[in-house]
Amino acid sequence: MSDTIHRRVVLASRPEGIPQATHFRIESAPIPRPDDGQVLIRNCFLSVEPAMRGWLNAASNYSKPVGIGEVMRSFAAGEIIESNHPEWTVGTAVTGMFGWQEYAAVDPSVIDCRVDEPDLPLSTYLGVLGINGITAHYGLLKIGEPRAGETVLVSTGAGAVGSVVGQIAKLRGCKTIAITGGDTKRSLCLERFGFDHAIDYKREDFVAELAHACKEGIDIYFDNTSGAISDTVMPYLNVGARVIICGTASVANWDPPPLGPRVERHLLVKRARMQGFVILDHKDHYATGRADLARWVREGLIHFEEDILEGIAQAPDSIAGLYRGDNLGKRLIRVG
Amino acid sequence: MSDTIHRRVVLASRPEGIPQATHFRIESAPIPRPDDGQVLIRNCFLSVEPAMRGWLNAASNYSKPVGIGEVMRSFAAGEIIESNHPEWTVGTAVTGMFGWQEYAAVDPSVIDCRVDEPDLPLSTYLGVLGINGITAHYGLLKIGEPRAGETVLVSTGAGAVGSVVGQIAKLRGCKTIAITGGDTKRSLCLERFGFDHAIDYKREDFVAELAHACKEGIDIYFDNTSGAISDTVMPYLNVGARVIICGTASVANWDPPPLGPRVERHLLVKRARMQGFVILDHKDHYATGRADLARWVREGLIHFEEDILEGIAQAPDSIAGLYRGDNLGKRLIRVG
Repeated sequence: MSDTIHRRVVLASRPEGIPQATHFRIESAPIPRPDDGQVLIRNCFLSVEPAMRGWLNAASNYSKPVGIGEVMRSFAAGEIIESNHPEWTVGTAVTGMFGWQEYAAVDPSVIDCRVDEPDLPLSTYLGVLGINGITAHYGLLKIGEPRAGETVLVSTGAGAVGSVVGQIAKLRGCKTIAITGGDTKRSLCLERFGFDHAIDYKREDFVAELAHACKEGIDIYFDNTSGAISDTVMPYLNVGARVIICGTASVANWDPPPLGPRVERHLLVKRARMQGFVILDHKDHYATGRADLARWVREGLIHFEEDILEGIAQAPDSIAGLYRGDNLGKRLIRVG
Repeated sequence: MSDTIHRRVVLASRPEGIPQATHFRIESAPIPRPDDGQVLIRNCFLSVEPAMRGWLNAASNYSKPVGIGEVMRSFAAGEIIESNHPEWTVGTAVTGMFGWQEYAAVDPSVIDCRVDEPDLPLSTYLGVLGINGITAHYGLLKIGEPRAGETVLVSTGAGAVGSVVGQIAKLRGCKTIAITGGDTKRSLCLERFGFDHAIDYKREDFVAELAHACKEGIDIYFDNTSGAISDTVMPYLNVGARVIICGTASVANWDPPPLGPRVERHLLVKRARMQGFVILDHKDHYATGRADLARWVREGLIHFEEDILEGIAQAPDSIAGLYRGDNLGKRLIRVG
């Protein structure tokens, strides 16, 4: 009976660098049964994140790499359709680390969020109200500590995290500068996300345009790329600047780390701080962050874009596509 | 009349990289006269710091470079021998930015410290109780925030700053590791400054020895060198590590910054922080830091070494000598 079978995406081989479609395999398998205390979730949306590269690489990371043959780790949003736990009732919409699969039997500890503001679409709980928005909220406000009048520069300003960073910074009275790739994303940054400047790193005049936008220096650099983009940005740090290391999307392989201009002298001379963070450490911040973000979305103060792929067959190539810059906005896969 | 003439060291030409003896010139000049509100100081000790390289280079730094023909900027300790200011009386011992010269006429705003604990030698006010000790105190305690049981690694562990960092860390219950150059300094680190490990970066087994000492990782890296030493240290950062950027002694020239392995991934994966500071920003910390240090020195809890050169003629080569590692302990020039 077809109802007892579902599809899932497993890791077929270990990528070095950016995971490609060929590193995954789509399998059919029996729908899992929830154990005592577990719930069964039917996923509606699977999430695609740049961070997934790190979850797959064998080199040192903040979590154990997904094993060969295991279901690809991912955030997902879905509905509880069977429950062996008294606190979680059938019909509840939830998000959490449910993996790239159509159904997941999980302990409730894996659930990040009970979707209790049903006026906002479920998909937003994986993007602007989910890990991306909360990453922007925590990173900018808790690590960056922006003050009105400061200048905030975001690499990947059109992205799911960067676009929210720019908009929160604007709400805090900062001047905002986006770095992004291509005319479409540049327009999106200026017109939809309200950046004061948006600079296309693919254009020949990138360095000159950045110099122009940064003529008063940068107080916060929210870095999602590392690499050549960061090398161009670092000389513009103001005294007391904060560099928030959120992602390293422009560097294909960190084993071994590639060479770049040393940063120590910038940090010393500018009395600046460079700090990495992983939002998964800050679950106690999720509810606060989500509440702010939901309010701002409802009030029309924060805008977002989604890039929804249809069907689990799109999953294997979806991470590589992110790194190619194929997507406009938060990339999701609709499966339910 | 010889009493009206003194000697001073002026900048003869702009160094690129490390200042050598040939970049300076010793001049004879009339002893300056204090204006209204000023005091005349007879210097006893002139200070020599690695940071002086930065005060001389044309490339971006935290202070305006010393001009050609100007007296070399430096800390010094001396005695007020004439006063046109009611709050500063003749006979008071003081430290401050009095320059590489035998006499200085200055505004009292240039004075950092009134030497009011005369049981400790005046020279200590330029080293362990001066800018070096206070740099160690502020950097380790305020930026590093050490907790008992953590591991603190210091590059230049035998130096005027590094030796104090190691000893304060030990007082806070940390495990301490020094990187230093040569057997003599290594012994000094172990026997006098009480480091748990001291590793000679000049030896072939440096990498293996470091790996052994760092087998539990590093929570605080107090970095005075940058360069190849830091590249070897960074992979040992623990989750939540703090890297304090205090100096960049091992890099001869920062214009342009030399290449090194990128640090962003270490900072991200380890949720680590890298922060530069300049102690001159933190004058409000001097009195607190000095009081702690004076107490620890009196109680025999903090040891120090001095390397005193005799006479102002030693000044021109003294910075280059620091970078050659000629000195054991805080380098000073006795002029009075």
